[in-house]
Amino acid sequence: MRTPAANAELALLLEAAAAPTPGNVDRYRDHPDLALSHFLAGAVGARAGLDAAAAGTPTGEAFERSIEGMSHQAGGNTQFGALLLLVPLVRAAADDALDPKGVDEVVRSTTVEDAAGFYRAFEHVDVRVDDPPPDLEPLDVRRGADAVPAVEHRGLTLRDVLAESADTDGVAREWTNGFERTFETAGLLAGTAVADSPDPSIDDAIREWLRRTDDVLDRAARVHLALLGDRPDSLIATAHDRATARSVSDSARQLLSGLPETPPDADAIEAFADDLVDRGINPGMTADHLAAGLFVALERGAIDP
Amino acid sequence: MRTPAANAELALLLEAAAAPTPGNVDRYRDHPDLALSHFLAGAVGARAGLDAAAAGTPTGEAFERSIEGMSHQAGGNTQFGALLLLVPLVRAAADDALDPKGVDEVVRSTTVEDAAGFYRAFEHVDVRVDDPPPDLEPLDVRRGADAVPAVEHRGLTLRDVLAESADTDGVAREWTNGFERTFETAGLLAGTAVADSPDPSIDDAIREWLRRTDDVLDRAARVHLALLGDRPDSLIATAHDRATARSVSDSARQLLSGLPETPPDADAIEAFADDLVDRGINPGMTADHLAAGLFVALERGAIDP
Repeated sequence: MRTPAANAELALLLEAAAAPTPGNVDRYRDHPDLALSHFLAGAVGARAGLDAAAAGTPTGEAFERSIEGMSHQAGGNTQFGALLLLVPLVRAAADDALDPKGVDEVVRSTTVEDAAGFYRAFEHVDVRVDDPPPDLEPLDVRRGADAVPAVEHRGLTLRDVLAESADTDGVAREWTNGFERTFETAGLLAGTAVADSPDPSIDDAIREWLRRTDDVLDRAARVHLALLGDRPDSLIATAHDRATARSVSDSARQLLSGLPETPPDADAIEAFADDLVDRGINPGMTADHLAAGLFVALERGAIDP
Repeated sequence: MRTPAANAELALLLEAAAAPTPGNVDRYRDHPDLALSHFLAGAVGARAGLDAAAAGTPTGEAFERSIEGMSHQAGGNTQFGALLLLVPLVRAAADDALDPKGVDEVVRSTTVEDAAGFYRAFEHVDVRVDDPPPDLEPLDVRRGADAVPAVEHRGLTLRDVLAESADTDGVAREWTNGFERTFETAGLLAGTAVADSPDPSIDDAIREWLRRTDDVLDRAARVHLALLGDRPDSLIATAHDRATARSVSDSARQLLSGLPETPPDADAIEAFADDLVDRGINPGMTADHLAAGLFVALERGAIDP
């Protein structure tokens, strides 16, 4: 059996290799300065921090270690958001409580010191984020460790910090809602009913299409497309604008619109993937949700490469 | 910095993703029952055994643990031979002695109990091997743990066992000659003079072509082709016959024959790769040497994804 940390690392690798995942680095596509090899090295490098999370190291410190390790490759930020989801999920799994309630307990137990670890993680890698509103400028994550005194002064836990971004950042939002999208994604990957998501947002015709392949990388790629079509990607909104994020989501949904009668055209999906890479559009939030969902599905034995 | 075990795992991942590596699973190609996802899971699964090797666990036991972990995926034997090279190399690296002399000391220090661990590893996975000569039938590795009493009776160390196959198995041979091919491969990957290989068998025109790319997966793929063209693959000889192994090696060498003036035709290499996959021909020895060479190059900082 793989340990939770090993499954988290494998989830990162499967996410990186799944293809086509339009706009993201995948088995068949690199971005000009961001390549599959960077994701492989990032996943391996993150392992020590994931092991630490499983062993009970405080969440902020384990997260910082995972980011520090991830950063030992030339591609820059490969898996920051995915690790922000995986570290508490690994901890919940190590506590034998990998469900929305269990991971919510992990994030609700975070402290001011965990928030400091989160800020220190930004010292290791450049992460694309929105400008904060003026009153939150002292808490700008790009200040890295320099923001820690302000965090301590305000007495913010790591969950408090992330809650500030929950409206605009689809990864931060997971920390506030019991990792709803993560568990929904795990259900999509498993091809089963989604016990943890009573109100699934992906319709039955798409779910049925996801189940039509047993290949783990193929199914992961289908889930990526379904997620992208279901909800605009917050990283695209940050890196470009909200209209671009909506437009990309609309395009993804359009590719799936012929279901259940007409499966999506494989060539059209490939062309969409090539187009997003050409335009430098990278749905990183969707990739992060996919990685987190892959971890839960691996832990539950719902997928087994 | 990545630990030796992390670099060994990354070497397995880079080997799996490098493309085109004709006949092997690669970034762009799966075999019918053996897919990239199996290699990703195999590498992650092997990590605990590699960590054990670095921590000083006896070589046979660490090897068995790496194979047991590797086997938790649906593809069967993904990286048996590569791990037989990596486990002693990781141990040498952890001892700060990653050179031919250092790894030779590791393998010369193996015991009868290490040999028993090697035999037990065969309990976890099916490995394609030649029939032994009649007098060695009690030592047939396919007997797994059942062969251990015969190994103990004869007092064979793990190096002794592998020395029996050195003439016909290019992985076993490494154990008897200071990992000559591994260090030569590392030099090819580094694109530098090969300090550890005074008599390199790959000619200058090919070496110069290897240096023409800085992309780590591309360079690894070029090295794979150069190795395959330089020497018939012993796994092809075992799985098919020696004539097939020679013919595949001849084809690989032919693709490189226009150097230095004419670089190999990329479409012809892709076609060669597709053809070998179609024929079920898998140069596993070459892949094992590449993985071992990638590890040494990573440890030395000669490549840095």
